[in-house]
Amino acid sequence: MSSKSRFLKAISVTEFTGVLDGVDIVAPGKERLPLANLVGRVLSDDVWSDIDVPSFPKSSVDGYALKARSTFGANEGKPVSCRVVGTVEMGRPPPAAVAGEADCMYVPTGGPVPEGADAVVKVEFTRATGTGGDELLVFQAVVPGDGVVAAGSDIRKGGMLLRKGSHVTSPRAGVLAAAGVTSAWAFKRVRVGLFSTGNEIVEPGKPLGAGKIYDVNSTTLAAMLESAGCAVTFHGILADEMAALERAFMTILDQSDAVICTGGTSKGRGDLMPSVIAQNPATTLQVHGVRVKPGKPIIMAIVGGKPVFVLPGNPVSAAMTVSRLVRPALRRWNHLPPERRVAIKARVTERVYSEFGRLELKPAVLDRGADGSWSAVPASKGSETITTLIDADGYFEIPENVEIVERDTVVDVIPFS
Amino acid sequence: MSSKSRFLKAISVTEFTGVLDGVDIVAPGKERLPLANLVGRVLSDDVWSDIDVPSFPKSSVDGYALKARSTFGANEGKPVSCRVVGTVEMGRPPPAAVAGEADCMYVPTGGPVPEGADAVVKVEFTRATGTGGDELLVFQAVVPGDGVVAAGSDIRKGGMLLRKGSHVTSPRAGVLAAAGVTSAWAFKRVRVGLFSTGNEIVEPGKPLGAGKIYDVNSTTLAAMLESAGCAVTFHGILADEMAALERAFMTILDQSDAVICTGGTSKGRGDLMPSVIAQNPATTLQVHGVRVKPGKPIIMAIVGGKPVFVLPGNPVSAAMTVSRLVRPALRRWNHLPPERRVAIKARVTERVYSEFGRLELKPAVLDRGADGSWSAVPASKGSETITTLIDADGYFEIPENVEIVERDTVVDVIPFS
Repeated sequence: MSSKSRFLKAISVTEFTGVLDGVDIVAPGKERLPLANLVGRVLSDDVWSDIDVPSFPKSSVDGYALKARSTFGANEGKPVSCRVVGTVEMGRPPPAAVAGEADCMYVPTGGPVPEGADAVVKVEFTRATGTGGDELLVFQAVVPGDGVVAAGSDIRKGGMLLRKGSHVTSPRAGVLAAAGVTSAWAFKRVRVGLFSTGNEIVEPGKPLGAGKIYDVNSTTLAAMLESAGCAVTFHGILADEMAALERAFMTILDQSDAVICTGGTSKGRGDLMPSVIAQNPATTLQVHGVRVKPGKPIIMAIVGGKPVFVLPGNPVSAAMTVSRLVRPALRRWNHLPPERRVAIKARVTERVYSEFGRLELKPAVLDRGADGSWSAVPASKGSETITTLIDADGYFEIPENVEIVERDTVVDVIPFS
Repeated sequence: MSSKSRFLKAISVTEFTGVLDGVDIVAPGKERLPLANLVGRVLSDDVWSDIDVPSFPKSSVDGYALKARSTFGANEGKPVSCRVVGTVEMGRPPPAAVAGEADCMYVPTGGPVPEGADAVVKVEFTRATGTGGDELLVFQAVVPGDGVVAAGSDIRKGGMLLRKGSHVTSPRAGVLAAAGVTSAWAFKRVRVGLFSTGNEIVEPGKPLGAGKIYDVNSTTLAAMLESAGCAVTFHGILADEMAALERAFMTILDQSDAVICTGGTSKGRGDLMPSVIAQNPATTLQVHGVRVKPGKPIIMAIVGGKPVFVLPGNPVSAAMTVSRLVRPALRRWNHLPPERRVAIKARVTERVYSEFGRLELKPAVLDRGADGSWSAVPASKGSETITTLIDADGYFEIPENVEIVERDTVVDVIPFS
């Protein structure tokens, strides 16, 4: 352990965020993904278009393609006459060019404008006459380009479609599809190694012996970390046995870009993870304790160049800590844009007391009133009660220096994902 | 086609929502899912707990379990003496009961309180004395229950964990884990059959012939529909050939709970889907045209009891239509809670003109200022331009009766997912 980590005191949430801002992970590289799997991912390379979009001059109206100059002088009272030489069908090359000076050809919206034509006059400004319907009266003058979307005007062949670092939303995936792109390079997801510690922890589905409790964190944290773009591997429940814990930790660290474990952060007997971290010669301890409730005994260290988080074993504390403190950094390491603060403004339904000197994350139920406004019912139970999470829709924050939140105060509730 | 559908005119977005509110789908049934796959799903059955949580009386402090009455009268100046008869280890049954009147036993936070004890006094109110450390001085009186979390106080054996209809968020999945639940019944996802129509449409990856364009909607809409909880099957690109289209449509309808197709909604030549829908004897046409921009020519019909949407082929129109008009109904059919309006308040950077009589969905880029406030740069191009979607982060709405949105107006931008 480096010398600068010998004495650490609990820091504020803001300071914690500042520490994490200074931490980067070893880039996990990139991988080529098919279009359907790109949604939600981030491009590791610029993507260029191999084609013009549209790849042909396209009509933007239902009408007649012609030489614009053949319509010059036409108006409602004085139509010009053209000869209809064919009909363009969607998805097919035009049957012929518009060769003659007064030739024209029907084109539907989106259809290709035939060679020789430089404009399309809308069908409502024309009238078919003559016996075979091959004479057309045109009641409007058009100029070259009218009714035509030029080839490459939307996307230029050789032009950039999406830059490196683009977050591929559904619409952006559509842009790739439009250019015929079927795969692209994306950043690999950060591999998070997750494990639980504690002799009292049992995997759900196994019999529960005396003094045992079921593991909750592998379920909740895996889901939360995946929603931050990570590839999560749960490495199981590790017993409180120093040598075995050290060995397992080193193996997990080796297979991961970042490690998160729960349990074993306080100073009681049997909490071995702080020692495992501290005794590792490759460790720089960065944080031991954050002034947040729930969740104070949080350890963050860099071990062998990789961030390692030791979080409280209490499921409510662990979930809130990951959501508020860890997920923003994981999103950044995954090259994802910052999570938008999708807070819901809600009126607190009762007075809430909070501890001075710690930022409190208060779980709350959201209720929508008849007028569409939200109210936030604060959780009555503490973080030791797992049922707090049954009804909570999210949480709101009570700053370090606030001890009382009065009823009807408007707070920002951050929904759980 | 039923008589009431003979004459339909374009309706407002509000009316469209009202029509959809009256539509239900045939329930797609339920399926049993493992815990890890339940996150994001909705329970089709109540889930009850088979165990008490905690399953044993648990210490809430590091301290000594004892009979509360043995401490009566103790205070800082007048400790009482107890005999330490053992130590409880995490995850193990207590080594013995606290049998004698003045016996006590060390218990860590979360450890099981031994039989015979009814309270735990915090370690900081005690002092070990005597040669073997087996005498303990207790400086505080406790009452029965102090420092003890009763068995079943969090979740009662036989009690309800989560109700039918509960949306399983990550924390709620944790509640199931806490009770040892490893699987539960969830509503099956609504099966959406998706297809594109148009002779001009080509699957990305195939060569692009003259007059052809790549299919975009299968990519964008599939991702958007999945984010609304649907199980999406893309049935390919169907050519504009009446008999084949009818046959394919009936097969897709048969395999789906709802059908969405793009292309072929206007009245131009070659737009066959309106006829396919109208000529089906099992059709009740509900909507033909919505006063929205982009996206006006929208068809919604009930065919054989199943909702069918025919949306514009234009990718920008299709994406916006699904996002704004169709997705809310799909979420409801999937028993998901309404999408929270996670709108971002943003200042429009320039004056925007809009068409009177249609609700406009205006794509926009979000920029964050140094002060944390957002600005919305409206898309300069129209919905015919696919590149509109490259940079757009979401859209804001311009009401039917508004023709000008002045610069600096604060609007709600709904982010694309």
